[in-house]
Amino acid sequence: MKIIKTVKEMQSLAESLRRDKRIGFVPTMGYLHEGHLALVRKARELADVAVVSIFVNPIQFGPTEDLSRYPRDFDRDAALLEKEKTDIIFCPEAGDVYPEGYSTYVEVKGLEDYLCGRTRAGHFLGVATVVAKLFNMVKPHFAVFGQKDYQQLKIIEKMVRDLNMDLTIVPHPTVRENDGLAMSSRNTYLSPEEREEALLISASIRRAEQLFKEGERNVAVIEGEVAKVLGSKGGLTVEYVSISHADTLEALEKIADRAVLAIACRVGKTRLIDNTILMEA
Amino acid sequence: MKIIKTVKEMQSLAESLRRDKRIGFVPTMGYLHEGHLALVRKARELADVAVVSIFVNPIQFGPTEDLSRYPRDFDRDAALLEKEKTDIIFCPEAGDVYPEGYSTYVEVKGLEDYLCGRTRAGHFLGVATVVAKLFNMVKPHFAVFGQKDYQQLKIIEKMVRDLNMDLTIVPHPTVRENDGLAMSSRNTYLSPEEREEALLISASIRRAEQLFKEGERNVAVIEGEVAKVLGSKGGLTVEYVSISHADTLEALEKIADRAVLAIACRVGKTRLIDNTILMEA
Repeated sequence: MKIIKTVKEMQSLAESLRRDKRIGFVPTMGYLHEGHLALVRKARELADVAVVSIFVNPIQFGPTEDLSRYPRDFDRDAALLEKEKTDIIFCPEAGDVYPEGYSTYVEVKGLEDYLCGRTRAGHFLGVATVVAKLFNMVKPHFAVFGQKDYQQLKIIEKMVRDLNMDLTIVPHPTVRENDGLAMSSRNTYLSPEEREEALLISASIRRAEQLFKEGERNVAVIEGEVAKVLGSKGGLTVEYVSISHADTLEALEKIADRAVLAIACRVGKTRLIDNTILMEA
Repeated sequence: MKIIKTVKEMQSLAESLRRDKRIGFVPTMGYLHEGHLALVRKARELADVAVVSIFVNPIQFGPTEDLSRYPRDFDRDAALLEKEKTDIIFCPEAGDVYPEGYSTYVEVKGLEDYLCGRTRAGHFLGVATVVAKLFNMVKPHFAVFGQKDYQQLKIIEKMVRDLNMDLTIVPHPTVRENDGLAMSSRNTYLSPEEREEALLISASIRRAEQLFKEGERNVAVIEGEVAKVLGSKGGLTVEYVSISHADTLEALEKIADRAVLAIACRVGKTRLIDNTILMEA
C-alpha cells in the first residue's frame, strides 16, 4: 500500500496508471468505519487500482460547524485500509489543496436549495469543489459514494454529468450498525444516552417504509408519523423530515414517482442524517 | 482531418489518444481569422494531435449581447483548419453540451470583478464553465489561448491551477492587422468608417507604451492620454481604460509591478477590446 501526500505526486502517478489500469476511487474525510470499508471493497471489486483519499475538507464546514473537532486517526485508518488491500492512500495537506489565493468554486445549482443545503450554507459548494479537484488529482474511472449522504450523492452525480467528467459514480447502500443506526464518523461524538436517542432515526425510517408498504402515499401523513417517532423520547431536535423527489429533491405532496425520505436531527451537539428510498421508480 | 460532432465520440477518442500522444487544444467560437490560426500553429508545434473546437457558447452571452448575430461559417473555418493541418475539428451541438436540466457552473471569484466582468454579468462564469467542460471532453495536455482576451486568459489560468486540471495553458501574443487593429471575429461587424475609428484603439495603446518607455509611471496620466487618443475623432464610446495588476487585475495608481493596460470601447454597435502588458515584471 502506497501512501501519497502531495497533489503533484498523486496526479503524475494517476496519469501513468490510467494508461492501462482502471482506477477506482473512494474519497473520505477519514476516521473510517465499516461504511467506508464497504465502499473500498466495492472499488476494489470494480477496479485494478483502489485509491482512498483521506482529507478533511475545510471549505465544506460552516463557521459554527465541527471542523476543528472532526475526529482524525490516520494510523488506525491506514491499518484498516491495508487490511482491505487498498492500493493507494492519498492524504494531501490543506495548504496543498487550497494554496494562498485560492478562489475557484463549482456550483451545482438547484439541488443545493433543499434538505441540508437550506441550513448548511456553502456546504455543497465546498463538497462539489473538493470532489472536482480530487477527481482531477486521482483521475478515476469510477468513484464510489455512500447513499447515506444522499444529497451529496445526487449533487456529485449531477456535477459529473453537467461538467462532462469522464467517470462513473457508483452509489453504495447505507451501511448500518446492528441496531439500525446509520454508520457515521460523527457517531463517535455520541454519549451512551445520545446513542440510544439516535436509534429513533432509523426506527422512524422503518416506520415510514412500513406505511408506504401498506399503501400510504400521502406525504404529510408519513412525515407526521416519522416526526412522532422522532419526538417520542424528547431528546432529538428535528431539523427536517422531508419526502422529496429522488432526483430533483423537490418536496412532494403525494408519492407517485421516485421518492426519498430524508431526515436530519440533532442529538445534543451532534448532527445526524439518514434516508431511505421509499419508491424506486 | 476528422470532424467530430458529439461529446461522447470526442471524449472516447481523446481518452485513447491520450495514452501515447500529446494533445494540443485551441477552443474557438469559429469564424476564424489569422489570430486563431496562429494559435493552431502553436498547438501543432507543441503537440502530436491538434484539436480545434468550434462552439458558439450560448451561456457566455448576456441577454442583450450578439449571440444570434455572432458570425458563423463552418465550411470556411474547416478549409482554413485543413490548410493548417489540424487533426480534429470538434463542433458539438448546443443541446449536447447543455442538455435539458443543465445547472452546474465554475466560478473563478475575484478576477471576474474587474474590466469586462463589471459590465458583462455572468460572461466569465459562462466562459470558465464551457472551458472546464471542453477540457473534460478533449483531455488536452495543453491549450492555447490568445492574450487578446486577457481577462479570459487570466481566469482560465487560475481555474486550471485552482481546480488542479492536469494541463498547461499556453498564452499567445495578440495578432494584429497590418494597420494595428487587434484581430477579432467581431471586426466583421464594422463599416469602413467604424473600421477607421477602431484604429484609435491600437494607436492609444502605442501612445501608452511610448509614455511608459519614456518613464511615466503615474496611472492617471497614462490613462488620461489614452482616453485623449480614443476620443480624438468622436466616434468611439469608451467603456473602460484601465491599468491593472497583470495577475490580480486590481486597479493600480503607480506602475511598479507587472501591469496591463486594458481597453474596451464601442464603435457603433460593436464592442471591441485590446490590451498590452506595459510592465513584465
